[in-house]
Amino acid sequence: MERHISQRFDSDLEALKSQVLEMGGVVEQQIIDSVKAIESVDRTLAEHVLSVEDDVDRREVLLDENCTMILACRQPAASDLRMVLSVTKMTRDLERMGDEAQKIAQMAIALSDDGAAPGGYESIRHMGALVQKMVNSVLDAFARFDADKALDVARADTQVDREYQSAMREIVTYMMEDPRSIGRVMNIIWALRSIERIGDHARNIAEHIIYLVKGLDVRHTSVHEIEMRLNKS
Amino acid sequence: MERHISQRFDSDLEALKSQVLEMGGVVEQQIIDSVKAIESVDRTLAEHVLSVEDDVDRREVLLDENCTMILACRQPAASDLRMVLSVTKMTRDLERMGDEAQKIAQMAIALSDDGAAPGGYESIRHMGALVQKMVNSVLDAFARFDADKALDVARADTQVDREYQSAMREIVTYMMEDPRSIGRVMNIIWALRSIERIGDHARNIAEHIIYLVKGLDVRHTSVHEIEMRLNKS
Repeated sequence: MERHISQRFDSDLEALKSQVLEMGGVVEQQIIDSVKAIESVDRTLAEHVLSVEDDVDRREVLLDENCTMILACRQPAASDLRMVLSVTKMTRDLERMGDEAQKIAQMAIALSDDGAAPGGYESIRHMGALVQKMVNSVLDAFARFDADKALDVARADTQVDREYQSAMREIVTYMMEDPRSIGRVMNIIWALRSIERIGDHARNIAEHIIYLVKGLDVRHTSVHEIEMRLNKS
Repeated sequence: MERHISQRFDSDLEALKSQVLEMGGVVEQQIIDSVKAIESVDRTLAEHVLSVEDDVDRREVLLDENCTMILACRQPAASDLRMVLSVTKMTRDLERMGDEAQKIAQMAIALSDDGAAPGGYESIRHMGALVQKMVNSVLDAFARFDADKALDVARADTQVDREYQSAMREIVTYMMEDPRSIGRVMNIIWALRSIERIGDHARNIAEHIIYLVKGLDVRHTSVHEIEMRLNKS
């Protein structure tokens, strides 16, 4: 990021970046905990995940206020304007990820009430690990303003989507074999859906980073097309 | 909206508003068509819904470019800044609504391939009608900058959530009674989930309108609390 005549402006943008990374850290931990809670049917951990919601919401609102203030007082242009606009979008995706982690935690609580599901835990563990890695990488890509690393995250999302489809097919067969377990299996289905959605939000954040660093709007674009546009830029 | 010294600025903001309403109209029709397609297992209509995606995506990207341009060139403050920031957020929710309409259309196509589900259509019709009304009202609230009407939309979303919970309970019993239908019933479940999500996005847009008109950030706030804050403001 270039240096500005106003040092206060530089420190405003630096503060914004730190706040995003802090919020990202909180949400990342929420995701790790929620996946662990459902895998190990740990009700206490699931309740802890739910208790973090207010903190995440406050951070989103505060970050948005800071962005609005910077827009109103500093009237940023070019890459600084892209930075501020990307941050408002990223925080929204981070907050949604936190929402999905909460849904996973709620499913963990439901499973601890109703008894464990007959299967699907392997998919939760596997997809959970993939998505945790995406979230960690995308925060790292933002910290370094690294468009290539962001592109890797977009790539990983297609793998998550494939795993999700195959997990769903497997799980429908569990339900058919043991219809009495349907209620409990539905909890696993909703948890897998939330994990898949977290992957989508990580991909969205990756797209915001590519916009921020390269000035390219790559939403609604396939990974292959993004690669081509990045090579040209 | 106050008049500005620069008439071009006024016309920029007016154009932005029209573009949001146009995009909203396209998405609203997508939602109406997708619900109709699944109710009447109309594959042709479902394919038409899918074909509108590119148009909606283009509108989102264009609207965002216009918002960025206004921020960079006009450096809006106060209520104009809120207008531009709200529009970037609203278009994102509109685009997501369009995505959910597409998912409903995909489920309609799956049902036309696999044969109809044994039930759940009544819930689709009922929740679909509720959500269509929300989308229509929230666009109207935006056209008139009407915070009270926006509040009504937020209120309606709690009803949609209740209907969704009760529809899910009913549908799980269908699956238990006839396990061979599970695959088809899952299509209905995903469609209901998408309808419920469209309601969430309509509520988000309602919150952006309240922010735009009243300057109050009412995200993460219960309807009761929003009412109290609006009465005070």
